[in-house]
Amino acid sequence: MSSSGRIERTLGVAVDRSSEGAPPRLASALRHAVFPGGARIRPRLCLAVAAACGDPAPPLSDAAAAAIELLHCASLVHDDLPCFDNASTRRGHPTVHRAFGEPLAVLAGDALIVAAFEVLARAFAAAPDRFPCLVEVVARGVAAPHGIIAGQAWESEPRIPVITYRRTKTGALFEAAGAAGAIAAGSDPAPWRTFGERIGEAYQVADDIHDVAGDAVSLGKPTGRDSALGRPNAAHDLGVGGSRKLLGQLLDEALDEMPPCRHPERIRAWVLETAALLMGAGRGARLSYDDSEHERESRSA
Amino acid sequence: MSSSGRIERTLGVAVDRSSEGAPPRLASALRHAVFPGGARIRPRLCLAVAAACGDPAPPLSDAAAAAIELLHCASLVHDDLPCFDNASTRRGHPTVHRAFGEPLAVLAGDALIVAAFEVLARAFAAAPDRFPCLVEVVARGVAAPHGIIAGQAWESEPRIPVITYRRTKTGALFEAAGAAGAIAAGSDPAPWRTFGERIGEAYQVADDIHDVAGDAVSLGKPTGRDSALGRPNAAHDLGVGGSRKLLGQLLDEALDEMPPCRHPERIRAWVLETAALLMGAGRGARLSYDDSEHERESRSA
Repeated sequence: MSSSGRIERTLGVAVDRSSEGAPPRLASALRHAVFPGGARIRPRLCLAVAAACGDPAPPLSDAAAAAIELLHCASLVHDDLPCFDNASTRRGHPTVHRAFGEPLAVLAGDALIVAAFEVLARAFAAAPDRFPCLVEVVARGVAAPHGIIAGQAWESEPRIPVITYRRTKTGALFEAAGAAGAIAAGSDPAPWRTFGERIGEAYQVADDIHDVAGDAVSLGKPTGRDSALGRPNAAHDLGVGGSRKLLGQLLDEALDEMPPCRHPERIRAWVLETAALLMGAGRGARLSYDDSEHERESRSA
Repeated sequence: MSSSGRIERTLGVAVDRSSEGAPPRLASALRHAVFPGGARIRPRLCLAVAAACGDPAPPLSDAAAAAIELLHCASLVHDDLPCFDNASTRRGHPTVHRAFGEPLAVLAGDALIVAAFEVLARAFAAAPDRFPCLVEVVARGVAAPHGIIAGQAWESEPRIPVITYRRTKTGALFEAAGAAGAIAAGSDPAPWRTFGERIGEAYQVADDIHDVAGDAVSLGKPTGRDSALGRPNAAHDLGVGGSRKLLGQLLDEALDEMPPCRHPERIRAWVLETAALLMGAGRGARLSYDDSEHERESRSA
């Protein structure tokens, strides 16, 4: 099954288990928050790292990937609330609080956070030795002081330290996704955390470009938010061309920093695929490729 | 060290670890949400069950108790938000959103949920075999479909099924506290879940009595909320006298249902102590006791 198929299936099982017997409107809000998904880039990163490390137990990597995505979906539901972005659309649909009201949006976000750890616990009953380390890694990517919740909270400070802000608000969950994929495959998470961090930086730059130069309809969410909300944005500072160049450099760095692993070709193919996703069309030496090359690399994965 | 001392110390370490390097206002909000505490009845239940089972590894039971209380504090912060109770005071102080604003209240609640699992992961690195089961038990007490988040979400339904509502909104975390204490002590959680459930029911009745007949200043939170918000309340249905009688019956049932364990006298002492806490003065045959008897039982624990 494709990565995408594995991710959707595991998320579907998780949402079903959280829904059966739950208050019906909460169950609908949970489904609305998770489906249809966006690019699912964090769980795809998690599965790509697991694949690079041999992925000896796919149910473990599936659970790790789904947990990362559930935490991401939770953060989107809460970030969209009126007290933060007050966003009306997300992934081309009404945000959860617009569709179900604020109380259910708060609760759906909370429930998704807990569901993430529940999904992990069910799968890792078969591999308990790795489980405490995995929970620490995943929690670190989300909680205070260094996770995405802390990242969002920097916006409530009178002065925002830009590097810390970006690393926590976006990078932390990418780091966790890389490290979690390695743990699920029984490998050392440390070098894959750095790899994930670089992918996260590239993603943030791509998101900045989209916010400045993107089209709200095709993105499924409003653009121009960073400028309106006074947030740091690389495309403001470097221009669209400069930030595209930076994006390519960051992905090149990710490839350079890739640790030794069983299937380096798999992670390389994934980076190329992701470059295409982030840039629309690949730029820079190693990131330019044609579809036939991409197809070939993907098939070999 | 007393149960209370152990709980406050473990919570203090958890909040410190979440705060160091975090956005300063988020760190303050986290501390505000956790300290000063209320009765800490859920973590005390957790430690009492662990003590009854021999408590062979106190760092594990400390972590379980602290995780349960962090999840409870998270639920209070979110339940107090304007879109739910819009409460201005809690434990005699301004609620988190009144003191720090809504964004930090949402984020502090989120961070406390994740911190609970982080506290568990750190402690259970020394006992990984029990860890997946513990995470499942704790998550079940909080998440959808059966945990306190689902309980709160029943309030967003056009019709509230009273028994399910009470069991989820309050009982679920008591069940989890009992079961988690047993797991931390290496015992079978199932019978202690039932014991916790009964304590939770008793607590709910006491809370209903306080809401109807209590005094906002000594409780540190507003009274009359259930009536104002149209929620079920036992003291409305049975009167204060009838609900006091029910409370005594529920605690008697808890004692009757107590499973065989190494130190039954410890859990018995705890139930008596809790009865005093919940009722102000004990009522009913086995729940009436004088201070000297209570002192004696407590010392033997």
